[in-house]
Amino acid sequence: MAEITLSAGGGGKAMARLINGVFLKYFKNSELREMRDAAYILTPEKTAFSTDSFIIKPEFFPGGNIGKLSVAGTTNDLACSGAVPLYLSCGMVIPEGYDTEKLEKIVSSMAEAAGEAEAEIVTGDTKVAPRGDLQGLIINVSGIGRTEAEWNNYSAVKAGDCVIISSDIARHGVSVLLAREELGFSGGIESDCNVLCKMLQTLYGLRVHFVRDATRGGVAAVLNEISERSGLGITVRENDIPLRDDVAHFCDALGFDPLAVANEGAVIIITEKDDAEAALERVRKHPAGRNAAICGYVRQDAGVIMETSVGGRRYIEMPLGEILPRIC
Amino acid sequence: MAEITLSAGGGGKAMARLINGVFLKYFKNSELREMRDAAYILTPEKTAFSTDSFIIKPEFFPGGNIGKLSVAGTTNDLACSGAVPLYLSCGMVIPEGYDTEKLEKIVSSMAEAAGEAEAEIVTGDTKVAPRGDLQGLIINVSGIGRTEAEWNNYSAVKAGDCVIISSDIARHGVSVLLAREELGFSGGIESDCNVLCKMLQTLYGLRVHFVRDATRGGVAAVLNEISERSGLGITVRENDIPLRDDVAHFCDALGFDPLAVANEGAVIIITEKDDAEAALERVRKHPAGRNAAICGYVRQDAGVIMETSVGGRRYIEMPLGEILPRIC
Repeated sequence: MAEITLSAGGGGKAMARLINGVFLKYFKNSELREMRDAAYILTPEKTAFSTDSFIIKPEFFPGGNIGKLSVAGTTNDLACSGAVPLYLSCGMVIPEGYDTEKLEKIVSSMAEAAGEAEAEIVTGDTKVAPRGDLQGLIINVSGIGRTEAEWNNYSAVKAGDCVIISSDIARHGVSVLLAREELGFSGGIESDCNVLCKMLQTLYGLRVHFVRDATRGGVAAVLNEISERSGLGITVRENDIPLRDDVAHFCDALGFDPLAVANEGAVIIITEKDDAEAALERVRKHPAGRNAAICGYVRQDAGVIMETSVGGRRYIEMPLGEILPRIC
Repeated sequence: MAEITLSAGGGGKAMARLINGVFLKYFKNSELREMRDAAYILTPEKTAFSTDSFIIKPEFFPGGNIGKLSVAGTTNDLACSGAVPLYLSCGMVIPEGYDTEKLEKIVSSMAEAAGEAEAEIVTGDTKVAPRGDLQGLIINVSGIGRTEAEWNNYSAVKAGDCVIISSDIARHGVSVLLAREELGFSGGIESDCNVLCKMLQTLYGLRVHFVRDATRGGVAAVLNEISERSGLGITVRENDIPLRDDVAHFCDALGFDPLAVANEGAVIIITEKDDAEAALERVRKHPAGRNAAICGYVRQDAGVIMETSVGGRRYIEMPLGEILPRIC
C-alpha cells in the first residue's frame, strides 16, 4: 500500500487497514486500541481545552515536519495556558494518492512529540479527500490538559512586569521559507519547532502573569494582543531580543521584519518584575530555552514600542496578515 | 469583506476581524470571547473525548450543511458513547477566496446545532489555505462530554441482545449525491443529519449494551465492526430495516446497497432483549427517531446475516471502502 486510496477514508476494510497499519502502530495506548467513537478518560476538575489545525508547505522542513508541528503546537498552547497536557486527539485529512511511507514518518513524529509532552493520543479520525480537492495533509490536534496555573488572563498583566522571550526569534518562518525549493537557496536554519511543556512547567510557583507562544504574526502580534487586551503598553529593547545573525540576515535580504515572522518554540512570558530573573534561569536550563532573555517591560500607558539598537524608538504595529504564505 | 483573504489566517488584524465578525458573532460564550489559546473549563471526572474532521461536496445539501454536520457528527459520537456533550472546539481551514456570507451561514448552523446539543464552542482555530491548495472548507470539531453510561464497549454485547435502528437508512448519502449537480437530477430527499444527544439521553437507565451511529460505511460497516470485535454474530431482517421507498428506488437505480450508504442520524442500538421495547418507545418519541425499529438480534456464532424480504439469507460484508465519493 504505497499510496493512500480514497477507499481508505470510507469506513470499511481499507480504512481499518490504514488505521491498524499506520496509526495504531505508533500511537500505542489501550484507549485508542478500543476503536471507540469517543475515548473514555478520567479528567481533573480544572482543565484547559485547545485545538489547532495544521497545513504547511513543505510538510518536512529542517527541524521538524507537520506531525511534530501539530503535536508541539497544541501541547504548547496548553502549556502556555498553564496546563499540563494529558490527552490529545488526531484528526487527519489525507489527499488521495498520498505516500504511505511519508504518512508513517509524520505519524511517528506525532507519537514522539506526544511522548515528550507525556500526553496520550487517545482518539482520532481519518478522512481521505479526492485527488484535486486537497494538495497536502491537514492535521488537527485538539488537547486536554490539567490546569495548574492560569497564564492566559490578560487582566493579570500589570505595569512594571517583565517581558521574557524564551528563544531566539523568526527561525521557524525562515526555515520553512528556505525549505521551499522555489526560492532556489537554502540556509542551514532549523525551525525552533519544539515541545515546550516541560520547560514551562518549571515556572509553576513563580508569579507568572501571562504566557503565549509567538506563532502566526510572530512576537509583534503577541505583544500587540497583550497590550490591546490588557490596556497597557509594552516596551522591548531591540538589543535584548534574541535573534541569530544568519536569521537576521535572511530577514533583511527578504524584506521581513523578524518580529512579525512565525515561531514554533519562542514564547513570550510576562512575569512579576521580582520573579523575572528566577524565571529566566529556569527557562534557560531547558535546551529550547537556552537563548532566552529578559527583553522588555510593561508600561502604564498604551502601545508596543521598541527601543532600537541605534538609540531610537519605533512603534511595533499589529501585523496586517501573513507575511509568508502558510508556515504553520 | 466578501471573500476571505489569505491574510485572514495570518494571526494579525485581518484574522481578528474575521474572528470578531463571524465566529464571535455566532459562538456566544464568555470563555471563547477571552480569545485564549486554550479554554479554561470545569470538567467532570469521567469524560468522553472525540474528534471528527469534515469535508463534503456540496457543502450545502437538503437537510443541512457542513456546519450542522460537523457539530451533529461530533456530539453524536459523544452521545453514542453514552456521554452528554459539554464543550466543543472548532478548527477551520478555509480556502482563500471563500465567500464570507457562505461561511457565516455555516458558522450560524454550527451555533444552532451546538445549542440543540446544549454544548458550548469554547475554543477555536482558523487557518486560511492558499488558493489551489484546497477546494472546500474543512471543519474539525472535537468535543468533551460527561460520561453517563459506557455504550462503546464491544465486550458488553451478548447473544440474545436486540438490534434497533433509530431511523430509516441511507438518506444522508443519497441526498448528498443528489445535491451534486453533475448527476443532473434531484429527488427531494433530505439528509437525516441531526443532533441526537437528547434522543439518546432518554435511554439512560435501560440496559443498553452498545450504540454507534452508522455514518461512513453505513449500517453494514457498523454491524460488521460490532460482530468482529465482540466475536458474535448478528442477524437483521430486511423487512424490519426502515428504508423509505424513494431512497430504496434511488439506491437501486444507482446500484448502491442502502446498507452501505452513509447516514448522519441513524444509530444502531444494541440492548438487552427485555429492554428493547422500552428503548424503542423512548427513541420514537424524538422526531429523529420516529421511524425507529427493532430489526435484528445478536447470535452466539459469527458473521452478519440478513434475512431477506423474499425469505432468503445473505451475508452482509464489511464494505471495502467508500461507495460514494466524500459524503461526510
